[in-house]
Amino acid sequence: MHHAILLISCPDQKGITAAVTDFVFKRGGNIVDAAQHADPESAVFFMRIEWELTGFNVPRERIAEEFRPLVERFNMAWELHFTDEPVKVAIFASQQLHCLYDLLFRYRSGQLPHAKIELIVSNHHDAEPLARQWGIDFLHVPVVKEVKEQAEQTQLEALKAKGIGLVILARYHQILTQDFVRQYPNRIINIHHSFLPAFVGGSPYAQAHQKGVKIIGATSHYVIEALDQGPIIEQDTARITHRHAVRDLIEIGQDLERMVLYRAVRWHLERKILCYGNKTVIFD
Amino acid sequence: MHHAILLISCPDQKGITAAVTDFVFKRGGNIVDAAQHADPESAVFFMRIEWELTGFNVPRERIAEEFRPLVERFNMAWELHFTDEPVKVAIFASQQLHCLYDLLFRYRSGQLPHAKIELIVSNHHDAEPLARQWGIDFLHVPVVKEVKEQAEQTQLEALKAKGIGLVILARYHQILTQDFVRQYPNRIINIHHSFLPAFVGGSPYAQAHQKGVKIIGATSHYVIEALDQGPIIEQDTARITHRHAVRDLIEIGQDLERMVLYRAVRWHLERKILCYGNKTVIFD
Amino acid sequence: MHHAILLISCPDQKGITAAVTDFVFKRGGNIVDAAQHADPESAVFFMRIEWELTGFNVPRERIAEEFRPLVERFNMAWELHFTDEPVKVAIFASQQLHCLYDLLFRYRSGQLPHAKIELIVSNHHDAEPLARQWGIDFLHVPVVKEVKEQAEQTQLEALKAKGIGLVILARYHQILTQDFVRQYPNRIINIHHSFLPAFVGGSPYAQAHQKGVKIIGATSHYVIEALDQGPIIEQDTARITHRHAVRDLIEIGQDLERMVLYRAVRWHLERKILCYGNKTVIFD
Amino acid sequence: MHHAILLISCPDQKGITAAVTDFVFKRGGNIVDAAQHADPESAVFFMRIEWELTGFNVPRERIAEEFRPLVERFNMAWELHFTDEPVKVAIFASQQLHCLYDLLFRYRSGQLPHAKIELIVSNHHDAEPLARQWGIDFLHVPVVKEVKEQAEQTQLEALKAKGIGLVILARYHQILTQDFVRQYPNRIINIHHSFLPAFVGGSPYAQAHQKGVKIIGATSHYVIEALDQGPIIEQDTARITHRHAVRDLIEIGQDLERMVLYRAVRWHLERKILCYGNKTVIFD
Repeated sequence: MHHAILLISCPDQKGITAAVTDFVFKRGGNIVDAAQHADPESAVFFMRIEWELTGFNVPRERIAEEFRPLVERFNMAWELHFTDEPVKVAIFASQQLHCLYDLLFRYRSGQLPHAKIELIVSNHHDAEPLARQWGIDFLHVPVVKEVKEQAEQTQLEALKAKGIGLVILARYHQILTQDFVRQYPNRIINIHHSFLPAFVGGSPYAQAHQKGVKIIGATSHYVIEALDQGPIIEQDTARITHRHAVRDLIEIGQDLERMVLYRAVRWHLERKILCYGNKTVIFD
Repeated sequence: MHHAILLISCPDQKGITAAVTDFVFKRGGNIVDAAQHADPESAVFFMRIEWELTGFNVPRERIAEEFRPLVERFNMAWELHFTDEPVKVAIFASQQLHCLYDLLFRYRSGQLPHAKIELIVSNHHDAEPLARQWGIDFLHVPVVKEVKEQAEQTQLEALKAKGIGLVILARYHQILTQDFVRQYPNRIINIHHSFLPAFVGGSPYAQAHQKGVKIIGATSHYVIEALDQGPIIEQDTARITHRHAVRDLIEIGQDLERMVLYRAVRWHLERKILCYGNKTVIFD
Repeated sequence: MHHAILLISCPDQKGITAAVTDFVFKRGGNIVDAAQHADPESAVFFMRIEWELTGFNVPRERIAEEFRPLVERFNMAWELHFTDEPVKVAIFASQQLHCLYDLLFRYRSGQLPHAKIELIVSNHHDAEPLARQWGIDFLHVPVVKEVKEQAEQTQLEALKAKGIGLVILARYHQILTQDFVRQYPNRIINIHHSFLPAFVGGSPYAQAHQKGVKIIGATSHYVIEALDQGPIIEQDTARITHRHAVRDLIEIGQDLERMVLYRAVRWHLERKILCYGNKTVIFD
Repeated sequence: MHHAILLISCPDQKGITAAVTDFVFKRGGNIVDAAQHADPESAVFFMRIEWELTGFNVPRERIAEEFRPLVERFNMAWELHFTDEPVKVAIFASQQLHCLYDLLFRYRSGQLPHAKIELIVSNHHDAEPLARQWGIDFLHVPVVKEVKEQAEQTQLEALKAKGIGLVILARYHQILTQDFVRQYPNRIINIHHSFLPAFVGGSPYAQAHQKGVKIIGATSHYVIEALDQGPIIEQDTARITHRHAVRDLIEIGQDLERMVLYRAVRWHLERKILCYGNKTVIFD
C-alpha cells in the first residue's frame, strides 16, 4: 500500500484541518493518519496527513498543483512525500563504528524500509570492510585542516552524483563547514554523545565523569551552522554510578547513541518531523 | 476558553475524518486538537476532536442533534463532553492513603481542573481526618462479607445523590460486585500494585519478591467484572535489586502507584481515553 | 536493632578492608553491610561498614578512641553514626510546597525513620498551615536583599537552638550566603529543577522549553558556595514532547523533584553518601 | 592486572567478612572489590571478593587448599575464578539473529573481555555466514522432535570437545531437555522476550498486544528444567502505545532483548552473579 504524506506549517487560523482533510477526501483519498499541533507562542499550526494513493484520483505529479489554492489561502510551507519513493542515504563515519553497524543491521533487517543506503563516507579506513561486506559504496576522504574545503567538495560531489537526500553523521567527529550544512537544510542528522545542552563539544563522557552526574545521555539533532545547536529530534538517558569510569560511560553511552540516532533517522524517513525555529514537532 | 470534545468510534471507512472536521468547521468551530487511530485488526476507527465553543454557532444542547446524521451515516458510538463541565468524583480508599493523599494534593494544586472531588468513601476511618481537613464529604461504610451488598447499596445511593461520574479506587482493597461495576461502565478506575498481567490478586509485592523479578510495576485500569482484567490505561515500572525486602518494594511501588493512578485519572478527565474490547486508545 | 555505621575515606593502599572488618569482628560486632570503592584517578579509598551494636563489646562513646590507631595508620577521614540517633532536620520552603508536602507525608508514613523534622523555615506564609497541621515548628523569616544577612542570622540561631544536623532546601528559591553554607558543609541538600549541568540558575523549565529538549530532569545536590555546582547526589529524567507547554514541564518536573529530593535525603540519613572533590560516592 | 574472584554463600553468622578479608590480606592480596549481602529470610550470607594476584603470595592452584579451613568453619559453598582465564562460550541461535549479532559486535569491540566465543550452534543455516565472517566455528544441528535427544547429543559432544563453560541461548527457540540442562547448572543463559512472569511460552509479543499492556519487557535468566522459570538475572522494559502493532512490539523488543541478554552475559563473565533458590544476587 503506497501512501502520500503531506507536512504543513502555516499561521494558525480556523479551518485548516477541515480544508486539508476535505481536499484529500474529495479526491477519493482514504486518510490513514492525521495529526496536528498548534504552537501557542508562535501561533504556528503544524499538520501531518497521510493517505492511500490507491483510489486517490489525482496522479502524484499533479497533487502539488491541485493543492496550490490551499497553500496560498493559508500561506503554507509544505512538503509532499510518497512512501514508495525511498530516500537515498549517505552515512558518514569515523573510527567508532557502533552506530554505523547498528544502522546497517537494522537496514538489512527491514527496520528502515523508506531508506536506500547508497554510500558510506569516512576520513578513515576502518569502515571499509563493513561497507564492502554489505555491498555499499565506500568513499574515503581524508580530512586535514588545510584541505577541508577540498575534502568537502569531494564529498558533496559524491552526494550529488548519487542523489543523496539524507546525510547521517554516525559519530563522524568532523565539523562540517557552513557551506556544506546550507546545502542540506534539515537533511543532516547528527548524534551527539551527551544530553544536550549539557556537555557541548568534545569528550562529553569525560566531561560527565568529571562533573559527577548520575545520568548520562545522547542527543540526535539536525545539523545547523552552530555546533551542537541544531533542532533536537530525540534524546535518551541512562543511569551511572560512581563506580563507572570514563570507559564505562563510553560503553553505556554507545547503546544510547545507537537507539537515539536510529529513532531520529526512522522518524525523518517516515516524515514525522517538522522543524520550527530551533525546535522539532515529532508526530509519532 | 471552553471547549467541546467529541470521542468517536465506528467501523473504519473513507471520509470520516473529513466529515467530522467539516462538521465542526462549517459551524464556525476552531479545532484545537484532532487525533485519530484505526485498529487494523478490528477495522475500527477512533477519533478525538476538540474545538473552541466560542464562535461555534450551535448551542451545546443542540450539538448532538445536529451531529446525528453523521452518527447514522458512519454507525458511530460517540460521547460529547465540555471542558467547563467538571466531572464529579468519588475516591474510595482504605488504610493506605498515599494515593488518596497524592490525588488531593494535585487537586488542590490545580492539576485536576476537570474534576470536582465530592466524596471520599472508606471501610475504615483512617482517611476521615484527611477528608475533613480538605473539606470533602466522608462516607464510612464498613464492608463485611455478609452485608457486602447492603454496604454497596449505601455507597451507590451516595454516589447517585451526588451525581458522581467517576469512581477512583485509590487502593480500596475491596472487590466490587458485578452489580456495582455494571452501573459505572468505564467509569471506575483502579490502581493495581503490579505490572499486570503479572501478579494478579493479593500481595503482588510479596509475589514479586518471591519470584525474584528485577523490576516492579503498577497498573491503572478500568474496572470490569473480572478481577484485575479491565482495560489497562497506564503502567510504569521501577528497578529493584536483591537488596530490597518486601517492605522496600511496597515503598518504591507506592511512588509508581501514585503516578500511574494520577495519569489515568487525568487522561480520563481530559477525555483522552477510548475503550475497545479490553484495550484502550489513549490520545495523549 | 541498633547499628553503628562508619564512613571512611583515605589514600588507597593494601589492607584497609581487612583492618576495618577485623576491628569490628574482634570486638564482637556482627557486620550487616560493608561496601567499598577505590577511585582510580585520585587513588582514594572509600568504605562504609555497618554493624550491630548488640554484642559489640565497646560502648559507643569509646569507639572513636579505639578506632584511632587505624585512623592514624591509614590517614583516614571518617564519620561514625548510630542508627538510633536520628538527625534533626530543618526544611526550608517558599511558595511551591510539593516537595515539602511530599517529605512530610513520607516522614509520617515512616519512610524517613532516621530523621526528626524539627523546623520549617520560610520567607512566605504559605507553608504555615501545613506546619501547624503536622505539629512542626514554623519560622517565618522574610528575606529582603538589604537584610539578607540578618535574616540568615535569625535562621542560623534557630537551627543551632534546635541542634539541626541537616538542612533541606525544598524549592526554597533563595541563595544562601557563603557564611551560611560554610557552617553546614555537606549538610545542606538542595533540589534543582533541571538536569544539571544543563539549565543552571532561574526558570530552568522555561529554558528547557525554549531549547526544545525531549527530556527534562531534576537534580539533588549538596550546597556549596558556587550556585548549583555542589556535589550531585541524585538525578532523574522524564520524557516530554512538543505538546508540552512550560506549565506542563513544571507539573511533570514536580514529580521528578519530589522523588529526587527524597532519595537524596534518605541516602544522607542512612549514611550512604561520601563526598570527594565535587562528586559523591553513593553506597546504595 | 590479573585478579582472583571468590564467590561465597553460607549460613549467615558473625565473622565471615572479617575472616575472608583477613585471609586475603594476610597473604599479601590487595582487595579491589568486596561486596556482601545477607538474605534475612533464608539467613544466607553472600559475598564476592576480588583481589590482585600480583603480590598475593599463594600460587593460584593452591588457593583452594589454603581456603579450605574457612570453607569448613563457615560451611561455605564457593567458587574461585581468575580474570585472566576467559570462559569459553557457545551461542545457540535460530533464525532471528539480532542478539547473536549484538553479542558478536560487542565481543569484537572488547566489551566481553572475559569471554572466548568458540562456537555458534543453530538448527538453521541463517547464522552461518555471520559465523564464517567472524571466524567462529559453526555447528548446524537440525532439531526434529523425533531425534531431539540425538541432536542434543551432537551439541553436547561439541560443547565438551571445546571445553565450553557458558551456553547463551540467543533467541534459540528450542526447549532443551532436562538432561542437557542438568549438565550446565547456572551455565545456560536464555533471553525471553517478555517481562516474566507475564507471557510465559510462545509469542509473548502477540500475547502482550492482545492484552493491551502499555509496557513490554525482556528477561534474561538461567535455564532450569521448568520452562521460563529459572533465576532471573536482568529485565528491562519499554513503553508502547495503541498505535503499535505486533511487528512494532517485536522491533522495540529486540532492542530490549539485546541489552538485557548482554548485561546478563557480562555479569556472569565478571562473576557478579550468585544464585540462591530461584533468585539471583547481582553484585553490580
